[in-house]
Amino acid sequence: MNQPVKIKRALISVSDKSGLDSLAKALHHQGCEIISTGGTQKVIEENQIPVTDINRVTGNPEAFGGRMKTISFQIESALLFDRDTDKKEADALGIQPIDLVVCNLYPFERVKNRGADFETLIENIDIGGPTMIRAAAKNFKYVTVVTDPRDYEELIDVLQKNDGQVPYEFRFKAMRKAYNLTADYDSMIASTMDETAGAQSMRMAYGEARTLRYGENSHQNGLFLRKQGAVDALYDLQALHGKELSFNNIVDIYSALDSVRDLQNHGCAIIKHNNPCGLAAGDNQRTVFERAWAGDPVSAFGSVIAFNRTVELDTARFLQLDNEDKMQRKFVEVVVAPDFNEDAKQYLFRHTNLRVVKFDPDNLQQEWDIKFFAGSLLVQNADRQLYDKKEWVTDSEGSIDEDLLTFGLIAARQLKSNAIAVVRRTEEGILQLLGMGCGQPNRVNSTELALRRCHDNLKMEFEGDRQALLEYVKTEVNNAVLISDAFFPFPDNIELAAKFDIKTIVQPGGSIRDKAVIQRCNELGIQMMFTGIRHFKH
Amino acid sequence: MNQPVKIKRALISVSDKSGLDSLAKALHHQGCEIISTGGTQKVIEENQIPVTDINRVTGNPEAFGGRMKTISFQIESALLFDRDTDKKEADALGIQPIDLVVCNLYPFERVKNRGADFETLIENIDIGGPTMIRAAAKNFKYVTVVTDPRDYEELIDVLQKNDGQVPYEFRFKAMRKAYNLTADYDSMIASTMDETAGAQSMRMAYGEARTLRYGENSHQNGLFLRKQGAVDALYDLQALHGKELSFNNIVDIYSALDSVRDLQNHGCAIIKHNNPCGLAAGDNQRTVFERAWAGDPVSAFGSVIAFNRTVELDTARFLQLDNEDKMQRKFVEVVVAPDFNEDAKQYLFRHTNLRVVKFDPDNLQQEWDIKFFAGSLLVQNADRQLYDKKEWVTDSEGSIDEDLLTFGLIAARQLKSNAIAVVRRTEEGILQLLGMGCGQPNRVNSTELALRRCHDNLKMEFEGDRQALLEYVKTEVNNAVLISDAFFPFPDNIELAAKFDIKTIVQPGGSIRDKAVIQRCNELGIQMMFTGIRHFKH
Repeated sequence: MNQPVKIKRALISVSDKSGLDSLAKALHHQGCEIISTGGTQKVIEENQIPVTDINRVTGNPEAFGGRMKTISFQIESALLFDRDTDKKEADALGIQPIDLVVCNLYPFERVKNRGADFETLIENIDIGGPTMIRAAAKNFKYVTVVTDPRDYEELIDVLQKNDGQVPYEFRFKAMRKAYNLTADYDSMIASTMDETAGAQSMRMAYGEARTLRYGENSHQNGLFLRKQGAVDALYDLQALHGKELSFNNIVDIYSALDSVRDLQNHGCAIIKHNNPCGLAAGDNQRTVFERAWAGDPVSAFGSVIAFNRTVELDTARFLQLDNEDKMQRKFVEVVVAPDFNEDAKQYLFRHTNLRVVKFDPDNLQQEWDIKFFAGSLLVQNADRQLYDKKEWVTDSEGSIDEDLLTFGLIAARQLKSNAIAVVRRTEEGILQLLGMGCGQPNRVNSTELALRRCHDNLKMEFEGDRQALLEYVKTEVNNAVLISDAFFPFPDNIELAAKFDIKTIVQPGGSIRDKAVIQRCNELGIQMMFTGIRHFKH
Repeated sequence: MNQPVKIKRALISVSDKSGLDSLAKALHHQGCEIISTGGTQKVIEENQIPVTDINRVTGNPEAFGGRMKTISFQIESALLFDRDTDKKEADALGIQPIDLVVCNLYPFERVKNRGADFETLIENIDIGGPTMIRAAAKNFKYVTVVTDPRDYEELIDVLQKNDGQVPYEFRFKAMRKAYNLTADYDSMIASTMDETAGAQSMRMAYGEARTLRYGENSHQNGLFLRKQGAVDALYDLQALHGKELSFNNIVDIYSALDSVRDLQNHGCAIIKHNNPCGLAAGDNQRTVFERAWAGDPVSAFGSVIAFNRTVELDTARFLQLDNEDKMQRKFVEVVVAPDFNEDAKQYLFRHTNLRVVKFDPDNLQQEWDIKFFAGSLLVQNADRQLYDKKEWVTDSEGSIDEDLLTFGLIAARQLKSNAIAVVRRTEEGILQLLGMGCGQPNRVNSTELALRRCHDNLKMEFEGDRQALLEYVKTEVNNAVLISDAFFPFPDNIELAAKFDIKTIVQPGGSIRDKAVIQRCNELGIQMMFTGIRHFKH
């Protein structure tokens, strides 16, 4: 079964003619007889290579406008019979083996994407091709099936290296590719027909499975797979250095990249348990990193950190990996970025365990957001639109510059609901997440968590006496903006915000108690903007 | 194109013979000629129905141990030719139309699940069947293809009602089913072959898409789909009453059902933003509901509530939907349960907006937990094992009964990380989530949230003077158990727990600072158990 097989007779019938000439030449050169059909035959003959017309093998004409070309007792027998046990029967029936099928299918998907009408779609369902491919693949013990012009070169190479024979491993791999192709082909047809009937269906194929050390916890097994045919995939991330990526690392890497992808200028996100506990953007990468870190300098330890631009040495050095005082070294799990300067790489690589990962957040082309439940899928398009309007609903209007608003809404969107983000522009002009609260059943808890974090962070960054400190905290919070991912159901959140000196609030609006909430803002001297767009994330 | 088609000639070749006799009888009764093969032919003939042997149509013998039976120029031409434009050509070639194909495939999946060896698997790849099915489906303008014995009855009915003709709608639906079948069939083969090669792949097909009003937010579109072939699916939930289910309702319904599925006795979970803010179990459903509600009586408003047993009237009445004082009515989004007593239903249906949903949590057979990212999948088996050991690691051992331990671990497992659950057995013997903290980047925050919630809840349930209150709170917390989903990285959490009078802690262990954490417990008079199993959930 594992013997190499000499290719003496090949059947070539392809829709995509690329690479056909060199393949035919190589086969002819090996002394292989080539059987072919219609357009394929023409191209081969133009290259002065002799071809056997398939009609001479089948005894049948090409019929019904090309619907019948290859399907026949003769062709499929030649592909399917067992060379060991069925030899005599084949001889008696006049069936000679075909050792190689080269075939690709009518371009159903391409024709569909061109917006073809229904009749044209139906005409582009290939019947003969899948039959040949599936028959050859079933008999891969003896037969080689090549379905992709990109594999011709390898086939030619293999034939040349093995004196015209194809080894078992090649045939086995080719067989897998063949059934993957026919599965994908019919999946595309089935989904299209379902769609035509108004009964949308989704078919997804994922391959190249990598086994992870474990899943979310060590008693669970984990796998990482790539969507077949995806142009960009998180799967393509390059682990440049450090320990193997864990399941949770990958979850957080996605969150981190998703958090920085829409940031203008240099951006940095610090992720802990799938939530950004630090986020900053501005024109100096090192300062941006420092400000992101300062968002929660305790939780930042052990975090996953993403940058949206090439990481510079000065930025990396903030981690103080080479500080003699080990307490000063900032241990983190992962740093991910589109690239790293050579000296930054060298610096980061000094830390044996630190995972350094290359991936460009611009390549996160996630159009669909999918949740998987027992036997079911919930599918939605990704949450991209940040706001619908910028409407000051209180008596007095505040002022938020566009960059800070966008930044704050990104922060609120990335946090698990209920989410509150307090953002500010620092004196150096960096946009910073000063405090966040997330994942709470009660919005008041998130508000309190965010505001307490703000106060703690401000106290930590201030150097001076207690009275000056209190003034400083008040001024900074006065200038910050509190953003809520969804409406406030009651005025209690407003009262809490006022207690912490918040002066500006942004929220989508839409509660039946909006009036009471606005009124409380007016009473407490808070300016509030409605954006019209909620950002629940669960 | 949309004309009904008279079935004059049928080809039947099935692996599954069920229902074959009545179908053959019905076709014969309509005056239809039946062409058949091997075993199928035998069964039909046993029913005294005349059959044309397929060899008489193809002119070829059955060959190569049955690998070649139907594939032929004659059969596929009879299926594929255009009855309008190719009529003359067909006549000239002696091809008579076949109007109906009844075929199901070699049972590759069944044979695989039986644990068949590789050779047997390969033999069970059907080649002739998919060719016939795909050809007939392509020409559904004229040809009917039936691939599932469960559809025979409908076919017979349709034939009887339409004087032996099949309407376009039936043919179109049958065509969709046919391509879905061949797609699934080759998907199964492709995945199996990939697996054999050690390159695991996943193929998933979801259909029956229902469009939701919107996604997680109103600017996102939402779809709900069912996994093809799934035995049990969340999709099958029955909305008995109330407003249409939203995307977020479904997310929370899953969380709610998942939270009660492993509870012994009566169980109730109250979900807000995908986290249980209330959870209880015990032998009286009404009391269980009350205790679950008391876990966070503010957040419980607008929640999604699940029960694991049939809901009784007395339980439902706790919502006080008919209370004259509207403030006493407990507004919730969804109640989901395996069933509802008739009087409970009537009571709940009085509230127009309340969604009443029937689904049995025992039917959540989710083996895999899958996360979708840009072009990639992260797959793990579900987190089922609660603990690996029950090891008291402190100088003094505590005592936790098995039921309370299991209940507490379920609570901690269902909460988003970092998660802290404080649980107790109430004086009525109900297991109750007394307070929870979740979704925090820093575990200390979760611990504080959980303990503050405990104190608030205990204060709310106590009736008496302040001194007695403080005593009561202390005693109750002393008797409660604090459970952490993952290890404590530092002793700070222990100190916080002690401050709130916690005496018993359960956690997986595994930190490099376990010793320091244990020592702090010993110093503070806390008993701590290690379970060895972490329950991160992100």
